[in-house]
Amino acid sequence: MSATLDLAIDLISRPSVTPLDEGCQQLIADRLAPLDFVAEHMRFGDVDNLWLRKGTQSPVFCFAGHTDVVPTGPLEAWDSHPFQPEIRDGLLYGRGAADMKGSIAAFVVAAENFVRANPNHQGSIAFLITSDEEGPSINGTVKVVEALEKRNEKIDWCLVGEPSSTCCVGDVVKNGRRGSLNGILTVVGQQGHVAYPHLADNPIHRAAPALAELVSIEWDKGNAFFPPTSFQISNIRGGTGANNVIPGTVTVEFNFRFSTEQTEAGLREQVESIFKRHGLHYELKWTLSGNPFLTPRGELVAASVEAIRNVNGQDTELSTSGGTSDGRFIAPTGAQVMELGPVNKTIHKVNERVSVADLDALAIIYQKILESLLTAPSV
Amino acid sequence: MSATLDLAIDLISRPSVTPLDEGCQQLIADRLAPLDFVAEHMRFGDVDNLWLRKGTQSPVFCFAGHTDVVPTGPLEAWDSHPFQPEIRDGLLYGRGAADMKGSIAAFVVAAENFVRANPNHQGSIAFLITSDEEGPSINGTVKVVEALEKRNEKIDWCLVGEPSSTCCVGDVVKNGRRGSLNGILTVVGQQGHVAYPHLADNPIHRAAPALAELVSIEWDKGNAFFPPTSFQISNIRGGTGANNVIPGTVTVEFNFRFSTEQTEAGLREQVESIFKRHGLHYELKWTLSGNPFLTPRGELVAASVEAIRNVNGQDTELSTSGGTSDGRFIAPTGAQVMELGPVNKTIHKVNERVSVADLDALAIIYQKILESLLTAPSV
Ligand SMILES: [Zn+2]
Ligand SMILES: [Zn+2]
Repeated sequence: MSATLDLAIDLISRPSVTPLDEGCQQLIADRLAPLDFVAEHMRFGDVDNLWLRKGTQSPVFCFAGHTDVVPTGPLEAWDSHPFQPEIRDGLLYGRGAADMKGSIAAFVVAAENFVRANPNHQGSIAFLITSDEEGPSINGTVKVVEALEKRNEKIDWCLVGEPSSTCCVGDVVKNGRRGSLNGILTVVGQQGHVAYPHLADNPIHRAAPALAELVSIEWDKGNAFFPPTSFQISNIRGGTGANNVIPGTVTVEFNFRFSTEQTEAGLREQVESIFKRHGLHYELKWTLSGNPFLTPRGELVAASVEAIRNVNGQDTELSTSGGTSDGRFIAPTGAQVMELGPVNKTIHKVNERVSVADLDALAIIYQKILESLLTAPSV
Repeated sequence: MSATLDLAIDLISRPSVTPLDEGCQQLIADRLAPLDFVAEHMRFGDVDNLWLRKGTQSPVFCFAGHTDVVPTGPLEAWDSHPFQPEIRDGLLYGRGAADMKGSIAAFVVAAENFVRANPNHQGSIAFLITSDEEGPSINGTVKVVEALEKRNEKIDWCLVGEPSSTCCVGDVVKNGRRGSLNGILTVVGQQGHVAYPHLADNPIHRAAPALAELVSIEWDKGNAFFPPTSFQISNIRGGTGANNVIPGTVTVEFNFRFSTEQTEAGLREQVESIFKRHGLHYELKWTLSGNPFLTPRGELVAASVEAIRNVNGQDTELSTSGGTSDGRFIAPTGAQVMELGPVNKTIHKVNERVSVADLDALAIIYQKILESLLTAPSV
């Protein structure tokens, strides 16, 4: 059994459903302590975070990840227990196998092998590990980054271990993420009886043409790095349940995933101008989950693409699609941020799994990236 | 205290929240038995109904009404207990005072006085009383009408005691009602993650333009007897509650109140053609609450308008507005159906009340209508 698989199994066995860590971070810290990694445990609220660093010099290469996992859902839907990892047909099954205890294990092993082979490497190697990535993301990475910023501790290259790959390891890396902006609209009308519509003002009727306009808009065409901005209504609720009552309000929740062609302020303004033009009486609450970020081609992307090609002959697509990640908190510090991890096909699902061979390949890829960035070019 | 007020208080004291009758029908039957009214108690399911008839000849004049009342809502919102009737400032307070124990009392007294004064009147006098008017209306009037039809027992004139008046007794009578047609639409899409909209199909987005079109339609302009047909969405529900999930379905409940310018089939066809033109994948369940009905000017309306003018000098407006009533079940038998009762301002509200003077006036109006229709014209 490979060292990576061994550690992955140990981590998956711990039922660290968000925001629990269940000792995963301590395990990592203990294991790397002999190699001069200094652990700083940062607990914010009910969230365990770990900042682990070897070396004091620049540049700082940081692996960012999370030990928390999403809930299992009904246990009977799983073929094996989600917290009793099993290998079947070369696949490791368990909650967190792909998202993202597998990549944590791979990076720990990569760091060990790299440091043993290159005891006098350049710069520093760090781990930024939270147990709040799958939760509200309030007491996790964002707070650790604040603490680092306060003492002017900088990350130069940040490799996020999120499962970026589509078919095989390294076919996709994410070098940015779209922004995410949520809105909760409440259209206010006047409640009444359906038999007396002239005494009421139906907010669903008011909202319908405005919503029809919103869903018909092409916000932009995207750009070289981002897919087009998309608008999606996630929830709509109006009515008392009775079929003879015109409701007093209707509530609509929506989300933008937006490219760098848009700004938060610009989207808000466009949306509100539509509601105003339709004469709606409304309340609107905005929440920004994250601005879009982009790491253009640079040392980190170049080293990663090269390492992937060396290890499995794979060409790599740079993508900014998909959900948000904690990279959004790290990118604003000026770090180059990139996500590279295993295949994401089964994440957040029952029978989550990862290929054992992929985990071993990932450990070697990570190690090669460290070699490329933290050792002097051999002449 | 007048006989009408006395009986109204007795009826209101019984907490006959739908579908309960709490002995009201027995009280009416017992009281009229000495005057040769023959009682037939028809219980369907959990609903008490009373068919009470004096005489075997045509024409049959029937008073239709209900002993059930809507719930009181929070007792502390009432100034006096809803089932302990109180008179303050000439107003009788209590649940059912206006809808419609007051008019039942007035008609019982009218019938008594009329029969005593005209023991050899023409035709028959009947009561059709249910305890299911405020409920689902399944085991009430509709079932009694079926039983009468089965044995070919016909009603010629039906006076429904629903509170038709707006400001003072008899200012409005209803000589028809709009139809009511309910639809439950489920638009089917494809659930997914908001970050991957191309893998999903948002049913709220699909529905929005179709709903916008529906709410913009002028269905008709009404006619001499009916206000324009109206379309109202009462409920809309879509979404899992999570703000990052595109829902798989959205459900929309709507109601038509329709004039005789429309038919059920015509409305259904128009609506479905819109959904089809918008390419929706949908399920649609229709329920007809009642077709529109209209009693044109005839003996019943004429006698009523005349009686109202005689008693309080009031001009009467014929109207078909407002909610449905059990008249919709009686009209299809060929009866002339008309609604005449007290002021409806406080019905279904806290502190429901009726003017004591109005109740007494109503009893006299009802009696004059009986005289006009069931006694030979004096030469
Ligand atoms: Zn993750
Ligand atoms: Zn009523």
